[in-house]
Amino acid sequence: MSRNVRVLVAYDGSRFFGWQRQDGFESVQGAIEEALFGVTAESITVRGSGRTDTGVHALGQVAHFHVDTALSDNRLWHALNAHLPRGVTVRALKTAAADFHAQKSARGKRYAYVIETARFPSPFTHQRACFVRGELDLVAMRRAAAHFVGELDFSSMASSGSPRASNVRRIFGLHLVPRRSGLALVVGGSGFLYNMVRAIAGTLIQVGRGQLEPDAVAEILAAKDRSLAGPTAVASGLYLVSVRYAAPLDWEMGP
Amino acid sequence: MSRNVRVLVAYDGSRFFGWQRQDGFESVQGAIEEALFGVTAESITVRGSGRTDTGVHALGQVAHFHVDTALSDNRLWHALNAHLPRGVTVRALKTAAADFHAQKSARGKRYAYVIETARFPSPFTHQRACFVRGELDLVAMRRAAAHFVGELDFSSMASSGSPRASNVRRIFGLHLVPRRSGLALVVGGSGFLYNMVRAIAGTLIQVGRGQLEPDAVAEILAAKDRSLAGPTAVASGLYLVSVRYAAPLDWEMGP
Repeated sequence: MSRNVRVLVAYDGSRFFGWQRQDGFESVQGAIEEALFGVTAESITVRGSGRTDTGVHALGQVAHFHVDTALSDNRLWHALNAHLPRGVTVRALKTAAADFHAQKSARGKRYAYVIETARFPSPFTHQRACFVRGELDLVAMRRAAAHFVGELDFSSMASSGSPRASNVRRIFGLHLVPRRSGLALVVGGSGFLYNMVRAIAGTLIQVGRGQLEPDAVAEILAAKDRSLAGPTAVASGLYLVSVRYAAPLDWEMGP
Repeated sequence: MSRNVRVLVAYDGSRFFGWQRQDGFESVQGAIEEALFGVTAESITVRGSGRTDTGVHALGQVAHFHVDTALSDNRLWHALNAHLPRGVTVRALKTAAADFHAQKSARGKRYAYVIETARFPSPFTHQRACFVRGELDLVAMRRAAAHFVGELDFSSMASSGSPRASNVRRIFGLHLVPRRSGLALVVGGSGFLYNMVRAIAGTLIQVGRGQLEPDAVAEILAAKDRSLAGPTAVASGLYLVSVRYAAPLDWEMGP
């Protein structure tokens, strides 16, 4: 009897060519599928809540897959981690309702974008943060950030990609959190267009540097023109923190 | 005119074969000396406050060297960082008194030993922490830690090495600081014997696991027998945080 299993996955994006399986490249999805094959000898497709690009990290990506194994959740979890390469960890694993779908059931996501501000980058943040030389004006950045909150058309913050029915998304909150050597932008929303968080980060960095007025963000969004916003900030600063579902996912293991 | 320059250095120990220059191996000292040669064309010996082993990190190693260059401190600092390889950063640089000696002038050091406790290691702590599966008893560890504070003979916590006049050292304080996924042992002392912090960490981990009674530490120290203490914990958890001098080092740059 096949069962539907969901997993909570963390990965260091610098070690993979993104989430999505691609022949000839090490991807996170491919690594999990290979590990599952190693454990169960089944060819299993793993579906994530969404893709992440090369270099983008995850603390709490959610995925699901169907598996025939007789292994308990606990044993499958341990065996899967034993087969996974360095750089990806299944933080939790649990049998889900038959209709749970990591992508279609998702109601929102939270990302963090980590910015290191210093004279020289720390040896410990290589490929783990976006380095900005010098200081950023946090007050100005917070004023600009407020313009992104709400149900808005984010055409000015989306890289061109496949055509979409609508570029309207809802951002629940966008907070700038000071850290020891910089700050993190923490943003939660109903959904995000391609490269949207990185475009928002790039725009806020321009505001923080004094290259863009905080209130110019309102005009940039209204113009629906990607070329008016800041550049797409580097992938290495971006972390998928969590995925939200109608009911919060319970990860407590059974006995 | 030669001048004496001191530097504050951070490095990711996983990228180097320790601090000390060794032919054929990439060391931190060697990397700084090569970068100085690249900047000044002078063959310069860099002296650190002490060595660190392969895999051991530093946030605030202090070193000094004599240099003839006419470059200002500020320009020398920037040029040096531009020549250094990934994994080592000069956080600050300043001309020092002629008699300043990073090792001989030092009065104490502070180390942190970072322990990750979880079911599976995070993808982000590889070579950056000591991984311990499961939970540690922080109350027991704190009780044991108190036995290490003071002026004591640390023969039971020193790896055999070159003979020393005395194994007596003073530990000013040893604190266990909870972190999101584990804890850090933060220890300051007048000086440390070879592998002493890692032996203390290994012993405290045994206490935290319930393999050793907290008060057994007093007997182990009294016995002056290394074989009674816990194992030497892995290098990757250890960080040299700061070096203390008679007067606190001022790192403010001039105009």
